[in-house]
Amino acid sequence: MAGVLTPQAEDFPRWYQDVVAKAELAENGPVRGTMVIRPYGYAIWERMVAEMDARIKACGAQNAYFPLFIPLEYFQREAEHVEGFSPELAVVTVGGGKELEEPFAVRPTSETIIGEYMAKWVQSYRDLPLLLNQWANVVRWELRTRLFLRSSEFLWQEGHTAHATYEDARNYSVRILHEAYEDFMVQVLAIPVQVGLKTAAERFPGAINSMCLEGMMADGKALQMGTSHQLGQNFARVFDMQFSDADGQQQLCWTTSWGTSTRMVGGLIMGHGDDRGLVVPPRLAPIQCVVLLVKDEDGAGDTAFRLANELNKAGVRVQVDNRVDTSFGRRAVEWELKGVPVRVEVGPRDLAEGKVTLVRRDTGAKEAVAVDGIAGRVADALTAVQDDLREEARALRDARTVDVATIEEARDAAQTGFARVPWSVLGVEGEQELAKGGVSVRCLQREDGGLAFSSAEPGLSALVARAY
Amino acid sequence: MAGVLTPQAEDFPRWYQDVVAKAELAENGPVRGTMVIRPYGYAIWERMVAEMDARIKACGAQNAYFPLFIPLEYFQREAEHVEGFSPELAVVTVGGGKELEEPFAVRPTSETIIGEYMAKWVQSYRDLPLLLNQWANVVRWELRTRLFLRSSEFLWQEGHTAHATYEDARNYSVRILHEAYEDFMVQVLAIPVQVGLKTAAERFPGAINSMCLEGMMADGKALQMGTSHQLGQNFARVFDMQFSDADGQQQLCWTTSWGTSTRMVGGLIMGHGDDRGLVVPPRLAPIQCVVLLVKDEDGAGDTAFRLANELNKAGVRVQVDNRVDTSFGRRAVEWELKGVPVRVEVGPRDLAEGKVTLVRRDTGAKEAVAVDGIAGRVADALTAVQDDLREEARALRDARTVDVATIEEARDAAQTGFARVPWSVLGVEGEQELAKGGVSVRCLQREDGGLAFSSAEPGLSALVARAY
Repeated sequence: MAGVLTPQAEDFPRWYQDVVAKAELAENGPVRGTMVIRPYGYAIWERMVAEMDARIKACGAQNAYFPLFIPLEYFQREAEHVEGFSPELAVVTVGGGKELEEPFAVRPTSETIIGEYMAKWVQSYRDLPLLLNQWANVVRWELRTRLFLRSSEFLWQEGHTAHATYEDARNYSVRILHEAYEDFMVQVLAIPVQVGLKTAAERFPGAINSMCLEGMMADGKALQMGTSHQLGQNFARVFDMQFSDADGQQQLCWTTSWGTSTRMVGGLIMGHGDDRGLVVPPRLAPIQCVVLLVKDEDGAGDTAFRLANELNKAGVRVQVDNRVDTSFGRRAVEWELKGVPVRVEVGPRDLAEGKVTLVRRDTGAKEAVAVDGIAGRVADALTAVQDDLREEARALRDARTVDVATIEEARDAAQTGFARVPWSVLGVEGEQELAKGGVSVRCLQREDGGLAFSSAEPGLSALVARAY
Repeated sequence: MAGVLTPQAEDFPRWYQDVVAKAELAENGPVRGTMVIRPYGYAIWERMVAEMDARIKACGAQNAYFPLFIPLEYFQREAEHVEGFSPELAVVTVGGGKELEEPFAVRPTSETIIGEYMAKWVQSYRDLPLLLNQWANVVRWELRTRLFLRSSEFLWQEGHTAHATYEDARNYSVRILHEAYEDFMVQVLAIPVQVGLKTAAERFPGAINSMCLEGMMADGKALQMGTSHQLGQNFARVFDMQFSDADGQQQLCWTTSWGTSTRMVGGLIMGHGDDRGLVVPPRLAPIQCVVLLVKDEDGAGDTAFRLANELNKAGVRVQVDNRVDTSFGRRAVEWELKGVPVRVEVGPRDLAEGKVTLVRRDTGAKEAVAVDGIAGRVADALTAVQDDLREEARALRDARTVDVATIEEARDAAQTGFARVPWSVLGVEGEQELAKGGVSVRCLQREDGGLAFSSAEPGLSALVARAY
């Protein structure tokens, strides 16, 4: 089955494209940079949505929905915001066959329009904090696009909150970062992300601080997988988000915003994939176990469905593949391409001995196991794959992250992974210097790994890398 | 608490607006005709999505996602489709600060773009049926808009399927109509919809047959709550959706499309609401039971949370209202406005006798019930409310549906409800005649209530009404 995919070592970007196409995850849309997400790719996204949505709600935020169309004037109110997003706007100028008097933008993000409504809804300190989230599509007119990683339209969630104090806003943006995003990425996606503070150069347009989660991909490059922004009072000021405090004084709100997107599907592909295709961690997988019927002889077909039923009752997301008119090898390759974490092969030869073959996608390890008690064996295998994927990713990340003392060393080390260099050595000028070579500061971190809230804090390290 | 809402009898459209605003369901967006869906309105929509999504998946369809932007040229391929949708398109002409060489439309519906991709994916009869669905926002540039009922952007699901034969396509479009849509609307929304065939005048642009589900609102007008279309080979022909059959011959596919939207929230409001506000059927309700703490004295607060915990464990979607600094009456009115089906009032006076007060939103009936075994009593009340809402809606619908013999009688009867008139009496000319007076044919039905597949069938009745 060689030649299904370009090997990673030969051409990593090509390998990525091959996986996206052959695992039937997505295709390019007809309008430049847009994306068609196929059923299997969308099923993975639905699982991400379910897991993230539960975590966001557990942090107290409620879902809502704001319009796709935003008046251009809204963007102009916040100077950095308009500068950051104007070059990326798609603008509607014709509606109902007529030229519009006031053209409007297709939302690239919703701080402005949500700020406008929050200002109406917040009157008193009793209305705070106001914790909102929306699942939506957004559009950014990108020049160079790549499926899932950078597309002109993508799907995401964007959280927007308003608070009475700086501290409350900061704490909530940090809570989302850890309890919603990091927990999901590490425990479910099995990608041990680095969490830190963006430099001023990489900050969200209009934020006072941006925090991020950076995953290491199989080629050693970084992928920003989520961000959480402290917006200070910048948007509150221009959208007049005032509340009366306990003493009856008018105060400006403090706001946050935070987002994760279909980009995480790209992170999944490059974080765990190998030369046989995608590898989906069991806790995320829309199909955790495929029961693969080898031949429909001697009651093997009945057994396959009976085992699937047993697995389903045990809470395993299972699917039967009984397409015996297609060769077994071809079907096995297909499930490997799709990264289904565990495969149970049911054939008459094994069954004669009361056994089936259990195959792990990550290691390829095969084991003959008894038909009786299959659910427990599959559950154990799923747990093992989940843990091993996370620990393998962590080991690879740690092995490819080096501490360096100079800008030159940082640049060199970033060719194959992450480099950690003192921010006091690098600084804004060093950051610009690295940028010329395509290396960026992914985040700043405290020595103890704790979150920094200002790049002026002493003793910070800069984590630098090439990035998607 | 008089004066919270305009009474229905005084001004029904105003009552509707009041409910939408005061139950905090939605607001107008800044760009004309767009809609901000607030958390409580969105929670209702999320429940609709969950229930519908499960039914659609049970019918075998898989979710996918297609781009928001569609080349204008796609619309022009199907003559009726372009004629129907061109006047409603929002067009993007500027991207990334530059005039686009090829402007494109924001999707009003996705038959064209999905047809283009299905054509690539379908090669052989083995690839059929191809059953896809997407949850998405769509935009139609409407002149007169009303929140939920007709907005320029709305949220919906649109299913798109391809089949090998006319019969298979027809059967699937009927299956979705009954098993996904009618089942949800009758059993969950508690709205006993009328199911039937659209006349040629009301057909989806590009379909050979459109079927629909029509609910009767509290003012006797009809609301189209969902549609399922047989598209014949119209889109297959222009998007070249061919497959090789079992004999190796190239054949054109037969396709369907079907949709339901946030319009159903409007149907919920007008289908069950009363002068005290929204009434949400228990199976749909995001909050099925509110535990309302009267006063936090003599351990009443602890009891309220203990009961809520018990209800939650019993699978009831429950919320505690312990805002005792707001008057009890005001809070009771708020939960009535939001239509929460069952309220449990917990106060020290009742508790002294081991009791709490259980209140049904639909009837307003209050009953003192024992604290012990509260979960069973609430569950019974929820079942009763669900059944009574549906049967009350059915009784009202039947009482306001009359059989008539002439066009004049049909026009008169449609002022207060539905009229059923022989299609042989009405015909296309009669339909046009009625339309002048704002009365339309909602659907054609067989005498036995069965679905018709052609308006040429003998013995059909036309169900006519004023409609939203």
